[in-house]
Amino acid sequence: MMKPTVLTSKQRQSRATQKRLLAAAFEEFQLHGLAGGRVDRIAELAKSNKRLIYIYFGNKEQLFDTVVMRNLEAMIEAHAVPFPDDLPGYAVELFDYLEDRPEVLRLFGWRNLERTDTSEVEQANYRDKVAKIAEAQRAGRLDVKLPAAHVFAFLLGVVQSWAISSEALRAAAGEDAARDRRRESVREAVARLTATSAS
Amino acid sequence: MMKPTVLTSKQRQSRATQKRLLAAAFEEFQLHGLAGGRVDRIAELAKSNKRLIYIYFGNKEQLFDTVVMRNLEAMIEAHAVPFPDDLPGYAVELFDYLEDRPEVLRLFGWRNLERTDTSEVEQANYRDKVAKIAEAQRAGRLDVKLPAAHVFAFLLGVVQSWAISSEALRAAAGEDAARDRRRESVREAVARLTATSAS
Repeated sequence: MMKPTVLTSKQRQSRATQKRLLAAAFEEFQLHGLAGGRVDRIAELAKSNKRLIYIYFGNKEQLFDTVVMRNLEAMIEAHAVPFPDDLPGYAVELFDYLEDRPEVLRLFGWRNLERTDTSEVEQANYRDKVAKIAEAQRAGRLDVKLPAAHVFAFLLGVVQSWAISSEALRAAAGEDAARDRRRESVREAVARLTATSAS
Repeated sequence: MMKPTVLTSKQRQSRATQKRLLAAAFEEFQLHGLAGGRVDRIAELAKSNKRLIYIYFGNKEQLFDTVVMRNLEAMIEAHAVPFPDDLPGYAVELFDYLEDRPEVLRLFGWRNLERTDTSEVEQANYRDKVAKIAEAQRAGRLDVKLPAAHVFAFLLGVVQSWAISSEALRAAAGEDAARDRRRESVREAVARLTATSAS
């Protein structure tokens, strides 16, 4: 008898197809967004067919949600820096993650414009982050001047500040647009946002 | 003889049509973006016709650029707070401007995803802002730890931090999601980013 973990040839093929469809969907959606993304092109890029997309993932919106969710989870799990004990380090880690993956930021950009629904996984992640910052504030390990949720919102704003800015600002920055300079400034900015205030 | 500033009935009509077309284009593009925006719907909403769009504004891309440019210029001109002498006040002013106009932020969001070209007006604005911050830094009126372009990028990041965050973060913020609380935190955050460092 087969062990349950051993997949049949058919199951292996099905998983491989799903994987190709998700990769193709990511590529299509990060380029064109939800409304602009075409299920035909996804099927073609994945060397599969449209019918399988509907069978495996439901409609286009559900496929989009699945792609967003997987990318959110991967980003959330990619952190090694302890949270919230080293928020400047955490911000730099996230900065590097997103600088290496501009297409992930594009995907999230479309999401914010076209599909504002959030998943329970995402909500739980934010509640957890905000609660941890609040706990560190109560314990005196983090400054209390800014509410916990604001600290995290500003951290995300600083990390993404160049991505959301016009190319014109990057042009005006000259040599300061270099990644390593921006990276060190992200560290400094988050340190300032969370430093214990004198007052 | 007529004075040159007096418009003929035909000129008045033409200007009124252009104004309606621009208002309709703004509405269409902020909702659906450049690729998703439909020239037919713009003409219909403006009670005009497609042919006039091409005559007055060129193609769809050029109409989009015109709408973006007008909104950028309006935003740039809307400031009363002296720059860069009161950067926290400037940030709060910009925060209020954009909180009152979420559809303007949506328009800029589409622009960042679909049309990264920048205009000379926009580039000149950023060069001017960065130069003024750099000048204040050299004169000792602003902290020098962060490069001038980074200061401005972070200010914009902080101002837009809630707009670019997922709805899930707003949900996690609870009462701290109130606009007046976020507003005061924007002021505090920019003050911290630009405060003279002890070191």
